[in-house]
Amino acid sequence: MPHPSSKHSVQFGSDASTAWKPGGLIIREKEPLNLEFPFSNLQTVITPTNQFFVRSHFPVPSISAEDWRLEVTGEVDAPFKLSYDELRRLPAETRSATIECAGNGRAFLVPKAKGVLWETGAVGNANWTGVRLSTVLQRAGVKPQALEAVFQGADSGVSEEPKSPGVIYFERSLPLTKANRPEVLLAYQMNGQDLTREHGFPVRLVVPGWFGMASVKWLNKITLTATPFNGFWQTLEYAYFQDSPGGPSLVALSEMAVKATIAQPVFHETIASRTVARVCGAAWSGENEIDSVELSMDGGTRWVTAQLLGEPVPYSWRLWEYDWQTPARPGRYQLKARARDKTGEVQPSSRDQSRLGYMINHTVPLEIELV
Amino acid sequence: MPHPSSKHSVQFGSDASTAWKPGGLIIREKEPLNLEFPFSNLQTVITPTNQFFVRSHFPVPSISAEDWRLEVTGEVDAPFKLSYDELRRLPAETRSATIECAGNGRAFLVPKAKGVLWETGAVGNANWTGVRLSTVLQRAGVKPQALEAVFQGADSGVSEEPKSPGVIYFERSLPLTKANRPEVLLAYQMNGQDLTREHGFPVRLVVPGWFGMASVKWLNKITLTATPFNGFWQTLEYAYFQDSPGGPSLVALSEMAVKATIAQPVFHETIASRTVARVCGAAWSGENEIDSVELSMDGGTRWVTAQLLGEPVPYSWRLWEYDWQTPARPGRYQLKARARDKTGEVQPSSRDQSRLGYMINHTVPLEIELV
Repeated sequence: MPHPSSKHSVQFGSDASTAWKPGGLIIREKEPLNLEFPFSNLQTVITPTNQFFVRSHFPVPSISAEDWRLEVTGEVDAPFKLSYDELRRLPAETRSATIECAGNGRAFLVPKAKGVLWETGAVGNANWTGVRLSTVLQRAGVKPQALEAVFQGADSGVSEEPKSPGVIYFERSLPLTKANRPEVLLAYQMNGQDLTREHGFPVRLVVPGWFGMASVKWLNKITLTATPFNGFWQTLEYAYFQDSPGGPSLVALSEMAVKATIAQPVFHETIASRTVARVCGAAWSGENEIDSVELSMDGGTRWVTAQLLGEPVPYSWRLWEYDWQTPARPGRYQLKARARDKTGEVQPSSRDQSRLGYMINHTVPLEIELV
Repeated sequence: MPHPSSKHSVQFGSDASTAWKPGGLIIREKEPLNLEFPFSNLQTVITPTNQFFVRSHFPVPSISAEDWRLEVTGEVDAPFKLSYDELRRLPAETRSATIECAGNGRAFLVPKAKGVLWETGAVGNANWTGVRLSTVLQRAGVKPQALEAVFQGADSGVSEEPKSPGVIYFERSLPLTKANRPEVLLAYQMNGQDLTREHGFPVRLVVPGWFGMASVKWLNKITLTATPFNGFWQTLEYAYFQDSPGGPSLVALSEMAVKATIAQPVFHETIASRTVARVCGAAWSGENEIDSVELSMDGGTRWVTAQLLGEPVPYSWRLWEYDWQTPARPGRYQLKARARDKTGEVQPSSRDQSRLGYMINHTVPLEIELV
């Protein structure tokens, strides 16, 4: 497969207020390791690996490529184990995909939600290289009665949740309808380099379009099941009650929601009045293409349309920017960005409290100071 | 249908140490109302209504028979609402069924479990009169794609569990395979009298063989669904993680487990040595028939077989007794009862911690004092 084309080198103009601001990741937790991309650093459509957010649930495992095996078992005709060398010899492809943590934006929630308090940067867009999951599933011969594939990482421990089932692995399932799609990869490279330990070395699942919890790192086992899997990480965590004909029903998180986030200006930035200030950021929407990004500089009363940069790339965020002619009147201004996708979905203006600490895509004002 | 036959009048002999001990229910909580049968009062195979345990999750609703309607909706050809008079005119039957709360025995758990701390008496056996659920489902015309029926009670409120979805009703689902079985009733009478308020007036579901949470009280709505229902009361409550091919998977509680409980003698009772002491109690096993009850008077080393009284009645517990020739040596003795059902299931000797505060059927010693 070809390397991502030149449309992936999209970046903001270097002539504006968006010049590269070097800086490390924000440490949210050291153990387990939870690191956030400072979203104001957004400069290129591809997030550099050393800027990509890290979400861990347990200590980062240390796995050698020589010892690693991927076990494929359960409802398959021919269970087998795959070595790292074998995987690397299978047909590979590279595709870019945006991965957002389901709790990204949690720091903005009132009342305060449980979990890591991310601001806007538990999201990134990388080039992932690996083998289609469907290639490996076909080799195993998935039985007709199989419904889901359960992915187990090598990371394990005891959750703080009192109802958790003791020592557990991080694991999540996919319905086969998604698992067999061409975009789902067993990835061993990120941005052209072998995965780093914290990003899942030697192999991670990459599930484009879905929140990050689906992209299981340190993948070591795939189990095909004939019944729905209700594991800890898709019931007591990464799930919430949604209305259903029978009443509220617990549903595992899956696809990312439509969302635009402002990278520049930054929170409480001081900007000159009667000048041009570049407002820029990124927008994404699960499995759908972004249609437009609108901006409001008055807290949501009037809206203008931002310019989308480059071309749409499936499963990747889209950079956008807007040159704001700042008004004459000094004072505090509230900036909001609002994305719409091609299916007509728009970011909501208020929080759906039923989502608990997940799937946070309502428009959040960013305050700046005009002087 | 005939009234329960004479085999339902089984009771312990009045010549022994099991003479009727009058006494009220044990108050575990006043609001919501949670009352326990003092199991040492067990005397007859049918539990008198005023001795039957009460389990509530929210305040007891007050419903008039005139205003009550049962709504049948969802995946049905002809949704309808049924009045109390209409229900009472449908063909009815009476059957006895044992109902045990899934948390019965929780007071014995170490470490202490969350929830109402029942001893042994959150269980009872009553005659239930009502209409087969299948009769009402047939009238609605269940569509082929329907998988489950969701039962909503009129009781509602906010659970203390932080992840609960706000104000909710008590509701539970049944797979249609169970819902259509002849033993599942829309009951309006208990032991020959109209249901009392605390037992679900005007109508409750009775699901013989299953733990009590399935027998939804104050029933007012049945919704047929084409997808599995993952309501609060079958995920965050009344469920636990069980091993599955993919790893631990959350499963809603359903069938009661095999269990025998000693009614007499009572905890720390003083009994004469070199005499005959009657040991008696009841045994039940979900949808299966009890095969035998064994007793140990030495904490589990030697076992003898108790006598089962009367004849087996499907879904009803079986009384049993044993005349113990007490030994000469005074001191503390540990009595244990152990039931086996016709499928070969036997009570375990130790607690399966994965079950959290539910499905407590391991053998628990009862200490008495020989003098």
